[in-house]
Amino acid sequence: MKVVVSIGGSVLVPELGADRVAEHAAVVEDLVEDGCRVGAVVGGGGVAREYINAARDLGANEIELDQLGIDVTRLNARLLITALNEDSVTAPAKDYDEAGEALRRGDVCVMGGVAPAQTTDAVGAALAEYVDADLLVYATSVPGVYSDDPNENDDATKFTELSAAELVDVIADLEMNAGASSPVDLLAAKIIQRSGMRTIVLDGTDPERIARAVRFGDHEGTDILP
Amino acid sequence: MKVVVSIGGSVLVPELGADRVAEHAAVVEDLVEDGCRVGAVVGGGGVAREYINAARDLGANEIELDQLGIDVTRLNARLLITALNEDSVTAPAKDYDEAGEALRRGDVCVMGGVAPAQTTDAVGAALAEYVDADLLVYATSVPGVYSDDPNENDDATKFTELSAAELVDVIADLEMNAGASSPVDLLAAKIIQRSGMRTIVLDGTDPERIARAVRFGDHEGTDILP
Amino acid sequence: MKVVVSIGGSVLVPELGADRVAEHAAVVEDLVEDGCRVGAVVGGGGVAREYINAARDLGANEIELDQLGIDVTRLNARLLITALNEDSVTAPAKDYDEAGEALRRGDVCVMGGVAPAQTTDAVGAALAEYVDADLLVYATSVPGVYSDDPNENDDATKFTELSAAELVDVIADLEMNAGASSPVDLLAAKIIQRSGMRTIVLDGTDPERIARAVRFGDHEGTDILP
Amino acid sequence: MKVVVSIGGSVLVPELGADRVAEHAAVVEDLVEDGCRVGAVVGGGGVAREYINAARDLGANEIELDQLGIDVTRLNARLLITALNEDSVTAPAKDYDEAGEALRRGDVCVMGGVAPAQTTDAVGAALAEYVDADLLVYATSVPGVYSDDPNENDDATKFTELSAAELVDVIADLEMNAGASSPVDLLAAKIIQRSGMRTIVLDGTDPERIARAVRFGDHEGTDILP
Amino acid sequence: MKVVVSIGGSVLVPELGADRVAEHAAVVEDLVEDGCRVGAVVGGGGVAREYINAARDLGANEIELDQLGIDVTRLNARLLITALNEDSVTAPAKDYDEAGEALRRGDVCVMGGVAPAQTTDAVGAALAEYVDADLLVYATSVPGVYSDDPNENDDATKFTELSAAELVDVIADLEMNAGASSPVDLLAAKIIQRSGMRTIVLDGTDPERIARAVRFGDHEGTDILP
Amino acid sequence: MKVVVSIGGSVLVPELGADRVAEHAAVVEDLVEDGCRVGAVVGGGGVAREYINAARDLGANEIELDQLGIDVTRLNARLLITALNEDSVTAPAKDYDEAGEALRRGDVCVMGGVAPAQTTDAVGAALAEYVDADLLVYATSVPGVYSDDPNENDDATKFTELSAAELVDVIADLEMNAGASSPVDLLAAKIIQRSGMRTIVLDGTDPERIARAVRFGDHEGTDILP
Repeated sequence: MKVVVSIGGSVLVPELGADRVAEHAAVVEDLVEDGCRVGAVVGGGGVAREYINAARDLGANEIELDQLGIDVTRLNARLLITALNEDSVTAPAKDYDEAGEALRRGDVCVMGGVAPAQTTDAVGAALAEYVDADLLVYATSVPGVYSDDPNENDDATKFTELSAAELVDVIADLEMNAGASSPVDLLAAKIIQRSGMRTIVLDGTDPERIARAVRFGDHEGTDILP
Repeated sequence: MKVVVSIGGSVLVPELGADRVAEHAAVVEDLVEDGCRVGAVVGGGGVAREYINAARDLGANEIELDQLGIDVTRLNARLLITALNEDSVTAPAKDYDEAGEALRRGDVCVMGGVAPAQTTDAVGAALAEYVDADLLVYATSVPGVYSDDPNENDDATKFTELSAAELVDVIADLEMNAGASSPVDLLAAKIIQRSGMRTIVLDGTDPERIARAVRFGDHEGTDILP
Repeated sequence: MKVVVSIGGSVLVPELGADRVAEHAAVVEDLVEDGCRVGAVVGGGGVAREYINAARDLGANEIELDQLGIDVTRLNARLLITALNEDSVTAPAKDYDEAGEALRRGDVCVMGGVAPAQTTDAVGAALAEYVDADLLVYATSVPGVYSDDPNENDDATKFTELSAAELVDVIADLEMNAGASSPVDLLAAKIIQRSGMRTIVLDGTDPERIARAVRFGDHEGTDILP
Repeated sequence: MKVVVSIGGSVLVPELGADRVAEHAAVVEDLVEDGCRVGAVVGGGGVAREYINAARDLGANEIELDQLGIDVTRLNARLLITALNEDSVTAPAKDYDEAGEALRRGDVCVMGGVAPAQTTDAVGAALAEYVDADLLVYATSVPGVYSDDPNENDDATKFTELSAAELVDVIADLEMNAGASSPVDLLAAKIIQRSGMRTIVLDGTDPERIARAVRFGDHEGTDILP
Repeated sequence: MKVVVSIGGSVLVPELGADRVAEHAAVVEDLVEDGCRVGAVVGGGGVAREYINAARDLGANEIELDQLGIDVTRLNARLLITALNEDSVTAPAKDYDEAGEALRRGDVCVMGGVAPAQTTDAVGAALAEYVDADLLVYATSVPGVYSDDPNENDDATKFTELSAAELVDVIADLEMNAGASSPVDLLAAKIIQRSGMRTIVLDGTDPERIARAVRFGDHEGTDILP
Repeated sequence: MKVVVSIGGSVLVPELGADRVAEHAAVVEDLVEDGCRVGAVVGGGGVAREYINAARDLGANEIELDQLGIDVTRLNARLLITALNEDSVTAPAKDYDEAGEALRRGDVCVMGGVAPAQTTDAVGAALAEYVDADLLVYATSVPGVYSDDPNENDDATKFTELSAAELVDVIADLEMNAGASSPVDLLAAKIIQRSGMRTIVLDGTDPERIARAVRFGDHEGTDILP
């Protein structure tokens, strides 16, 4: 089984420290132990936000901000790599070719962002599509896909299951409402739709949930069905 | 004045040949002569479509198709460069840093695609944002932004002027209708919106139209106002 | 057994499409199945010619034309890769080190051109020499090495067998007659001579002929004996 | 006049934010305005320390920690670049060749770390030596070179002036006392000694001090005389 | 005027030392002073031969030997660069794009070999063709093109003037006689022929001869006329 | 067992030739045969010194000299690779990531210098630390660590055993005495100290000594104990 796990930056490093990273690394290694081939894509989180805020104050444009963000995601990727055992992988992959090559050779591959104007959500979906993954898991800081931003609207309800087309609609609606955050961005949703990959969006603050979802399909997040 | 021109592949090389490329190169050089700093982003056109169709038949996934497409856009970029005079530029820029560096030094910069899951439409907008361009021109094979696909629907009407927010809405609607093609994709539209760049979408089959639009603001396409 | 197959562009993609590419990929995979280590070098074909003609009309010099040609050969290499099964290889090798490394690890390696002023014929011979191949096969659009250009001269006769030194003489003579095309260029012939590799030049329009030649030494082309 | 300024990470970003970075950028631009050619080398600071601490807890070895640190210094370099005006520079230099090339063309160059087992102190000295700088300034969080660590020992006295040979001795002594921090490391001191560059170590928490030191030689730090 | 000078390794470093290199650098700078744009391509010479001999004894094949040779030519290129004044160039160009870019910006460009199976003779011709040089000078250890190898045959006569087509014939004949060395190889001769560049082959052991030939067309070598 | 062998340039190529290189390659392969994973770091030796002397005469600064030296170490690395059997490795690693990746995959890795202002002594220690080597062997031209330079001082005595802290002290003392050469430089000694690696310094002019030291711990050099 081939799995791509997209780990949000605020899930991997809610604050910079070893514990959560170690837990995520342990899950990756457990899955490898089970016989999975695993690709991990990690986000930028709080450090990215701090660099981006500082740079925005300094007059940087959005593409420059994206490049700072990408650099931080690669730092986080390298941090995750230090937590994996030494047989796993040496350095973050810089593009899909490198990542796919690593997976093809049976290595775990870890990557961050790839290019400006593209989130690591989209990179996760693109990597999953590129390697023909059987499953794509988004480990985010919200427990699934909601009808609205649950932090803003108490009536927001979590979807247990969505078709990929419905996911695109829900995300498109959320993105139209400025300020509403969504667990997966629109580009990612469209890649999921076109590729027909099984996808799960779940709360990644307890990494064990990823392992359970991959192994048993057992989770409390949202299932995106092809 | 800093201008980014995004030239569709089917506009630059409707079929592989020198004439149209020479005309586009002449326009770029005229603008440089006028004192503009010019960045050109070129698409893949028919050759890209042929490679993509062949590869799709061979079972390639969308990311692999995108990579083939990117390679063709870079070929087209190199072809355009051969048509520019020797003081202009030597080789296509591979990313925004290289492209921005070329423009900063006063060179024309020419680039194709950057990363999978991102069209050259979006690259054009991102480059324009990155270099803080004064104007972004899309030279496409349709004469502007329409309410619907003009090739499919006779009632489609061309917009003379749109706000960036309206552009995003129009494109989002078009993309929801599978099969309807739009002159600029949604990601590009969103970058245009967030950056507040003046943007023109026009018929690029006569390259002189680009020159007139840049010099005098005179064109029959669609004006996107910040 | 280590085999390098040099597939002419007009043999791989007589016109851009999937069928011939799929057949060549199948032959490569069959040879791998047989236990061969296979390196494939692909040419540019018709698309290369079209880009080169357009660029020549635009005033490009021969080195610029070569660079366009190299880009097309790499596109074709990527196309062939999409047709190989996923365990084969991820991206074209850019130089001999990368290609040799892939072969060393047991992967199929696929490459196009390497540098201007050097055809993919020569790259094929150089790769074969670099990896100490047991056999080099040129799959061309003519059925072997002829005493003259068979398309120009009805009296041209096909050689069944040539020593490498004779090959160099024949090719040198052909190249002296401007306009006469030869199935393998002079640089390639000299590399074949110095390395003492067994080499076969055959009609590659039916890819099965390559498989038969490798497996059984059975073919209707020209044998170059060390 | 050619100046290399080595800006400690905790001096540039005592905490992640725009203000201090903007002040340092302003000083760089003022010096350029004065006709100086300026190279800036920036350190990692608090963010580097946090990544390194996390990675150490995860079992990373010192070389892996250095690589994380280098990545953070490059992030900081990119942050400083966003604060410089657009005519200055586009992206951090990755090695001395790139940095020297930028300075040679009249650009400001900004870089972070280069290789593991080498601090940005040493990079600053090496860059200064490579470009034959007239002056090297260390903008650190202590106000000069002390006879001992001033944070540990109240009797530590600041040197107003030192020969390069004396600097090497002082630093060598400090490094022998585990735990004692020095404003410049031993490798940097040795490069300063062998190259015979004029060097100033000063308190960089007020960036204006750098400008005054460069312009008038006026500062309250330590002068290292060739 | 645009000039490419191809300096044989045994001409630049008959033995490793500063003097001859300094003289060649002085000629390059004098030509720049005169207003020329200068590209220099340097060979491997005695050091290359020693590495190649050692590697051949160790069983290396010709492509591996070429790669060692290329590495040495780049070392020699770097050595020549250290002798040029600091406004000239920073590092050897690795390919024609980089070299052309340097010349386009008004820098001196210096390069060594580019790819296996291609001598620096051919690189010199290819660079000259790529940058549309007005003149290509081969500074070799023999004083021109001879009817036969002058070290082997006392009756060998030097040509004062040859057409490019005659050059190709002469070189082809020489190369057919195993062991006979020629001042320029066949690939280089063919590039000279197709590009129609004026070319001079002269004795480069006194670098001043290069300057005189470029400035006044005055030399005792062989003129290759388009 | 994981071993890093740092082979001095004057030990590997006392003069350029095949014999000593072949012996060192045989030792590396014997160790691999025994089940060791082996990383080799090679120095520059006499060729490096000759280039450096020439460049120094030409006015190059120390960083430029270091870059020439690094290029020569990579040449030597490539030479050693040609002597290893074809299953070993294809090209020198350029940085620790590449080298570590090669070792991780079970390949022999060979590298030269990494960055200016850092000897291959230090690279050897850093690589050993990076890959968590069980043993680091310095094969030098002196038979161990001495109390003083044995070529200068007849009273210099060889240490049979030193703690890493003592090694740092000895080397620091030696380096203070200008002109005294030490078998391992101070940076290397400090890396050895901080990493706590077992290290042996021995006479590498007979490569068999390396094999014996690795296999049986049997040697006449100096043991550095963590």
